[in-house]
Amino acid sequence: MSKAIEAFVFDAYGTLFDVNSVVRKAEALFEGKGPALSETWRLKQLEYSWLRTLMGRYEDFASVTSDALDWSLESLGLQADAHTLRSLLDEYRRLAPFPEVPPSLAELSGSLELAILSNGHPDMLRAVVEHNDLARYFRGGLLSVHAVRGYKPDPRVYRLAEERLGRDRRRVGFVSSNGWDAAGAKAFGFRTYWVNRTGAPVERLGVRPDETVADLTELTRLVA
Amino acid sequence: MSKAIEAFVFDAYGTLFDVNSVVRKAEALFEGKGPALSETWRLKQLEYSWLRTLMGRYEDFASVTSDALDWSLESLGLQADAHTLRSLLDEYRRLAPFPEVPPSLAELSGSLELAILSNGHPDMLRAVVEHNDLARYFRGGLLSVHAVRGYKPDPRVYRLAEERLGRDRRRVGFVSSNGWDAAGAKAFGFRTYWVNRTGAPVERLGVRPDETVADLTELTRLVA
Repeated sequence: MSKAIEAFVFDAYGTLFDVNSVVRKAEALFEGKGPALSETWRLKQLEYSWLRTLMGRYEDFASVTSDALDWSLESLGLQADAHTLRSLLDEYRRLAPFPEVPPSLAELSGSLELAILSNGHPDMLRAVVEHNDLARYFRGGLLSVHAVRGYKPDPRVYRLAEERLGRDRRRVGFVSSNGWDAAGAKAFGFRTYWVNRTGAPVERLGVRPDETVADLTELTRLVA
Repeated sequence: MSKAIEAFVFDAYGTLFDVNSVVRKAEALFEGKGPALSETWRLKQLEYSWLRTLMGRYEDFASVTSDALDWSLESLGLQADAHTLRSLLDEYRRLAPFPEVPPSLAELSGSLELAILSNGHPDMLRAVVEHNDLARYFRGGLLSVHAVRGYKPDPRVYRLAEERLGRDRRRVGFVSSNGWDAAGAKAFGFRTYWVNRTGAPVERLGVRPDETVADLTELTRLVA
């Protein structure tokens, strides 16, 4: 079936880019609290993206990320001045890719159109892609949910990718390490590849990813 | 301003009913893992309710709760037979109210119309209310999101309560211990009372509750 795939659409945070550098920065600033802060922050960031979409009160991902950091710091009893806040938020513009990502993108982009579909504000997304010199692999573009003013897994987001690529959704492979994002993409109708880097249980959301891979190397082998 | 309130609508789980009995049951079944299981379970239950609403794939709260338990057990490396699963799920039908809840409802119901608006399936909701002999206080009814096939904080849910009560939303007080639920109700236009039992930080969702109280005794004093 994978023979029919014409393009791959990738999630960004956690799928291409390793959010672990946020943990390190948080630990450097708040010794002993780095893992707790970054985990709480990430969970709250997703929660707020879902809640704001449900409430019909979209704000861009930079704002949501900042709001989530603010809540997380207070919940852990931590205080941060404007400079510290900025340095934590800026980490999202400098995340490193997982090691296998650049060679996998190089290989896949030879025969397939690649794109990113991310919750990130267009500025955040462009910054992290250019910081890592990966823009040339994404002929399909860097697509942000900002265009539809709602977050994943709202079907309007996945439809945006289908429309921008101009391809039948059944010919598009959607790649995400977030199980709920893979579920949303599968419910929409993309062929989905769940990158399960941590051995997490599959999400019980009524749909299953078409394929589960451990990383992008395995994805590349699967479609070769 | 509270003089204008004609009716109170209460969230159920966490607001009227203490989910701590789930912790105790989980601990009795899985020694040392009770708090982790019940915390993971509750978070996943909410996540799935939000995600399914965003995906347009509503399933009732009994199913979502069961799916969340299934995921949580696997994530903690725990196994449970059908009998154990059933006994955990049945806890939601037998939750105890917080101690101040019955006298507060008795007092408030003397002069105001009270109702419940809950994510719970109508059967789950009726079971826990009748188990605690509280039905007589809710002349406004036990309202379930099941009627609109979407979960809080989708505005359709709050609109359901407005319509069923037949009152202007500005005359309705909405009471929830869940900060995000209070935010959803406030965004909709109810006058909102956040029951912050644990001293949690206020949610950064662009709206603030009108009042914050520590429990229902404080709410009763506030509107007396």
